[in-house]
This record gives sequence, C-alpha cells and structure tokens, in this order.
Amino acid sequence: MTEFLHVITTDQFIELLRRFKRLASERVALDFSLHRSPAEDGIAPENLPERARSTVDGYAVCAEDTFGASDSIPALLEVAGAVEMGTIPDFSIRSGQAAQIPTGGFLPAGADAVIMVEYTNPAGRNNIEITRPLTVRTNVLEKGEDVKSGDVIVTAGRTLRPCEIGLLAALGITEVSVYRQPRVAVISTGDEVIPIECTPEPGQIRDANAHSISALIRAAGGEAIGFKIIPDNAVKLRMALEQGLAQADLVVLSGGSSVGTRDLMVEVAAGLPEAEVLAHGVSIRPGKPTLLASQQGKAIIGLPGHPVSALMVAQIFLTPFLKYLQGSELKKGPLGQRVKAVLAVSIHSTIGLEEYVRVRLVAGTDSGWYAHPVFGKSGMLSTMVKAGGVVVVPMHVEGLAKGELVEVIQI
Amino acid sequence: MTEFLHVITTDQFIELLRRFKRLASERVALDFSLHRSPAEDGIAPENLPERARSTVDGYAVCAEDTFGASDSIPALLEVAGAVEMGTIPDFSIRSGQAAQIPTGGFLPAGADAVIMVEYTNPAGRNNIEITRPLTVRTNVLEKGEDVKSGDVIVTAGRTLRPCEIGLLAALGITEVSVYRQPRVAVISTGDEVIPIECTPEPGQIRDANAHSISALIRAAGGEAIGFKIIPDNAVKLRMALEQGLAQADLVVLSGGSSVGTRDLMVEVAAGLPEAEVLAHGVSIRPGKPTLLASQQGKAIIGLPGHPVSALMVAQIFLTPFLKYLQGSELKKGPLGQRVKAVLAVSIHSTIGLEEYVRVRLVAGTDSGWYAHPVFGKSGMLSTMVKAGGVVVVPMHVEGLAKGELVEVIQI
Repeated sequence: MTEFLHVITTDQFIELLRRFKRLASERVALDFSLHRSPAEDGIAPENLPERARSTVDGYAVCAEDTFGASDSIPALLEVAGAVEMGTIPDFSIRSGQAAQIPTGGFLPAGADAVIMVEYTNPAGRNNIEITRPLTVRTNVLEKGEDVKSGDVIVTAGRTLRPCEIGLLAALGITEVSVYRQPRVAVISTGDEVIPIECTPEPGQIRDANAHSISALIRAAGGEAIGFKIIPDNAVKLRMALEQGLAQADLVVLSGGSSVGTRDLMVEVAAGLPEAEVLAHGVSIRPGKPTLLASQQGKAIIGLPGHPVSALMVAQIFLTPFLKYLQGSELKKGPLGQRVKAVLAVSIHSTIGLEEYVRVRLVAGTDSGWYAHPVFGKSGMLSTMVKAGGVVVVPMHVEGLAKGELVEVIQI
Repeated sequence: MTEFLHVITTDQFIELLRRFKRLASERVALDFSLHRSPAEDGIAPENLPERARSTVDGYAVCAEDTFGASDSIPALLEVAGAVEMGTIPDFSIRSGQAAQIPTGGFLPAGADAVIMVEYTNPAGRNNIEITRPLTVRTNVLEKGEDVKSGDVIVTAGRTLRPCEIGLLAALGITEVSVYRQPRVAVISTGDEVIPIECTPEPGQIRDANAHSISALIRAAGGEAIGFKIIPDNAVKLRMALEQGLAQADLVVLSGGSSVGTRDLMVEVAAGLPEAEVLAHGVSIRPGKPTLLASQQGKAIIGLPGHPVSALMVAQIFLTPFLKYLQGSELKKGPLGQRVKAVLAVSIHSTIGLEEYVRVRLVAGTDSGWYAHPVFGKSGMLSTMVKAGGVVVVPMHVEGLAKGELVEVIQI
C-alpha cells in the first residue's frame, strides 16, 4: 500500500525542504573555513589599521604645505627623516618638512598626508620638491578606516572566500564557528543494479548514480557515505534506510526506475516510525518520480533511477538543500551562473511539466550567446556531458520559440 | 644589486607563465576525480546501452501497427507479455501485439518503438488501445545510441563534473588518469610580519597573506605548504626558498611591501643556481611589484606584501597558473563569471596601468545590473570583502564613464 499523493510543483518541493532545520555549528581553524558559512556574524575585535599608515611609497607631509604645488611651481620641503617599515617613527615633522615613508609605514606625528614618490623630485642633499597638491589624508589609511572595532566583518550564512579569510587573519581570528557539513547516506536500489567494477550480465546495469550523486554531494560541501546496493526487498531496504538515518544527516536513495521499485521505496519510507511522506512525484521533466520524506527531522530524498533524471533532480533540489543545511539561502537549483542567450531552435514542451532542457552555449558572431538544445534522447548520459547548461521551460507554456531570449543556467 | 627589468604587461606575464610545463599525471579512483582534469582523452570501452532499452513506462510495439492511431480511432493490440526490469525478455512480439515495459527495460524481439502508458487505454482482459501514432525508435534508446564503443567521452584538460563521473561509472571505468595537484610553498617575508595568533607590537602586522593566499591555492585545487615567516635576511630567505623549491612544485612569496624587502626578494631569487628572473614589475594596479622567476623549471612568484594587492595579483595570475598546471587552458584571471553591468559612477584611472577596480553588483529596477565601485582606499581589505567583482580598466584609457556598459568579473 502506498499513500497516494498528488504531484507537486518544484516550488512546493522547495518549500517542503524548508521545513528541515539547518545543521548545528562547529568551530574550525581559519585555514579549514574556505567555502564554509559562518553560523553567526563575525565582529571585529580591534581596529584595522591600529594607527595611520601610508598606502604608497613616498613622503609623509603636512598637506597644507603642498597647496598650489605644481610641476612649474613645486613646493620645497626639508626631509626630516625616514620611516622604517614596522616601527613607530621616533620623530615628528612640522610645516616645511617631509619624511620618507614606505607603503604600510606609520605616519610620523605632524604628518597628515603622503605624496607618491612619482610626484617628487630630489632637490639637493636634504630637500625634495613636491609637484602636486594634496588634501588631508591623501594616501593615508586612518586608524580603523579599514575595519572599526565592533564592525560586522563576516555575515552568518555567507560563504567564506579567500578575502574574508585574509580579513579574519588580519584581525587575529584563528578559528571560526561555521555550519557543520552534512553527512549524506547514498543508497542505490534495484535488483538489476551492480557495482561499477562488475561486468553487467544481460539485463544488469552499473550503479552510475552512486558515483555521480556522491560527486555532487562533495561539490556541495557534503560528505557522501556509500552503502551497498540494495535489491528490491522491503526488509533489506528498511534496514539500509535505518542505518543511513542513524549514521547520516540525510539519506539519498536512488533507483526505482521501475514502478515496482518506486512503490517499494515509498512504502518502506512511509513505514518507518514517525516518518512522513511529504512528496511523491514532482511536475518536472526529467525527474517526475521524486520522493521526499522526513523521519525525526531528517530528510529522505528518493531520486529517480535514471542517471540523467537523478542528476538533474539532484541539481535542482539536493545541492540547494545541502547548501541550505550549511547556512545558505534555500533556492531552486541548478545553482550555476545564469547567462542570457538566444534560443537557436524552438523547444516543444508539455503543459503541466516544468522542463529542464540541456543546451550547449555557443558564442555568436555578434558577441552574444546562442543556446543549442543538445540532440539526443532524454535518458542519454552523454547529453549531460555535452551540455553546458539548461533552459527551464515553465509549467504553463507549450514551448519556447527559436530566437527567444532565454536564461541558461550553467551546470 | 638587482638586475633592472622593465615593467611588463599582464598579457606578457601570462605568456611567461606559459613557459612552465604542466604537472605529470597520476591515476586516482573515480570517486576522487571530481574537479580534476584528465591528462588524456577518455575512450568508451563499450556501448551504452548494450542493447535497445525503453526510455519510458509503456508498451513495446511494432511502430507500423500504430500508424493512423488517434483518440477517436485507436489501434487495438494484444498484450503478449510484460518485460521485467533487468532481464532480457524471453518472448518476442509480432504485428498486432504489445508488451508491457518499464523505463530502462530491454525491448523484446520484434518491437521497434514504445508507446507511453499515458497514450494507451486498457481494452478488455488482454488488450490495449493505442491512441497515438509512433515512428520507429520512438522512446527507444538503441544499442550504442548514448555512447558508442571508441567514442571520446572525456577530454584531456576539461574538468570532471558529476555528470562526467556518472558517465565514466556507467561504462565501468573505476580509475582515471588526471593531472597531479600542485604543491605550493607559501612563504611570507618581512621583519614586521607576525603569525596571526600573536598580538602585534606597535609596528608589527599580522600575516594575513599566508592564510588568504593558501585559501586561494586550495580553491584552485592546490595544496598549500605553510612556511615560517622569514625576516628580511638574505641567508634565511635563500634557505626558505631552497626548501620550498625542494618540497613543492612552485613557491609563492608574499611580503616586500617596502622597497628594501622587494629588492631582497629579487636578489635572492636571482642568486639561486640556474635561476632566471623573468619579470619584476607588472603594469597593473593594485599589484605592480610582482615578481616571476624560474629555477630549474619551477616557478617562483613574488606577490606584493599588501594583502589586497597580493590577493588581487594571485587571482589574476596564480589561480590561472595553478589551473594551467593541472591541465586547463592558461588565461588571465580573475576566472570568475563575467556579467555585463552599467557603471554607476565614473572611474578615473592612470594611463599605463591596467587597473582592477572593485565593485558591488546591484540589481537595477530594469532587471539589469549596475556596478558600484566600492568606496575605500586601495589598501583596505574590507573593500575586497564588500566587492562582488572587479571591473578592468585597460592600460590605454584614462577611465570609464558613468553609464558605460562594462564587464564585471565576479570574485
């Protein structure tokens, strides 16, 4: 017996995923925080810089002394000293004086601007000519001008890039609290499915999904836990599901290209204690037979058995969900870059299904992009490999016309 | 003494990087090949599928029997059997017969097309009505139609995505030969530089670069080998460089924000046996004081000491170089997505310098993008964090005007 649920839209599916809680946080060393998301806003513990520094190689001066300076009428200043990198100058300057200063050097007392060396000329043993006027603070980074103590420097849920890591390092932050990375149990099912290292007997098929879906999970920052292939047997499937739920934060089932296997999957998921089947069927092509269930707060996602459908559905729902669990906003995938392109040929679609059409992006002579649907039947893995992106045909249209400007999502 | 080299352009710098050889290949398990590049083209060892399969749930038929079929005049066929998933049918059909078939099921002998179950009606105990005409091969994947034995399935130098991993898995390929990942020695220099866990004395500065550059190296698929901070001392710097070159595939130095440290870096690099200084100075802002040297086929890249300049130069040259070493095409970075945007305010630039201006991308009311230069002085790390991209102002222009359509490279 399977509870019959009507087919839902992709947006409804995403809303159902939003019911699940994000993962807990953990503290990691700064060097392990790349591409992770902070679980809380990061606050600057101090000022950056801690005192005024020069941003160029040149001379620290009193800006007032340079007013009106030009190539033809330069200002003449006496060089009172040289600032050394990494030390606080032990001298000060007054009007009429300048001090040599390197990029990053601290300004000596009395100086309020720095002239770039390019706009100075040596003038005798201890003097320079200034050929440009400066305003106060030119080429100077004031105390706290980069970051003020108390500023929010990283935002919860926003992935850390090398530049954020550099800023945290500059502020002496050696550890960050980030969302935990999801552990995902990957279970393939089906009597006909065999490990990829085996040679298929007639009628058998290699378990491509375990590998492509695990790769996708890794690309989304998750850890894929591989399970043995489970035959179409309710007892064994239930055992595997229970193990997966115990060991992982969510379970991804794949398989069930036949109606029988699909029904078995739903039946077994529904039969777990406190389990709820949230969706069984999504109005999408490829990928209609997609399952979503929850058990004690953990998600069970059943992907179609067909490798192309499984991968497409995983890009639409699983990758965004894994990123959401790690702190990102939840939005429908694929999450690749979006590029406007002219559709090279018309696409026919079915009303009532949101269709994901694989396309190649080809540069036109007019420097724009053209989207060429990839030739080949929907079940062909090679069409995924040839595709650089997908065009989404909305549910309520019959297709898209040649020449239309469409959005291509890169995959 | 330092050999004086004239400042070169960014394109010349890229051409110099092309002198270095790509890394050797290594064999890795398929599950470790994500985002790696094959060192050679991959050839399909067999056909996919190995025999004709259905791509839908429905009935295998002789296409000829359906000619002229419609809702009002359906074709009546006898159901001769049911194909089971994962087994080769032990029966055949002839004209006037059909066989139930699941998605992925093998066609029985005699069948040459499959009608979707949606376009059939049950008609008595052992018959069905077909309401659509089919052409031969409709909803059938022929032997080798997805991949033919001998086809090139993955291309040398093209990064493996989950779909390529799925295709390789489906063909029973459990290992791939990929370019090795570069090991990069990361050496920070400067008397004033201290580890990030230390509290700076007046005049000291934390070693942000070691962490931001190491993160960038990891993001580009490399392994960063951390070194102790080296003071401005030729003997110690030479020792560190020698160690770095011995342990790693290339060395990235950072530091030398003062002219003295920069000169020291060049002098020490030039003094290594068989070393050649290829570039010392690039016509770029930020990042002018960038060094490139080679020693026995390994690259030494000297980044500016300023964290912002170091990170920007690393995005322009180091990331592309690391990807090139791993098999990708070599092209000037940043390698992020490119988006057209309207410049929100005018940018002034210096003729003779290629300028990388940090911008925020803001969506306009007209669904286009606007590029807002990030306010703040060039040395501010916070400007990198606030920026979503950069706009490149070419060398030979004085700036870009407000309202111009520019290309923003996302960072």
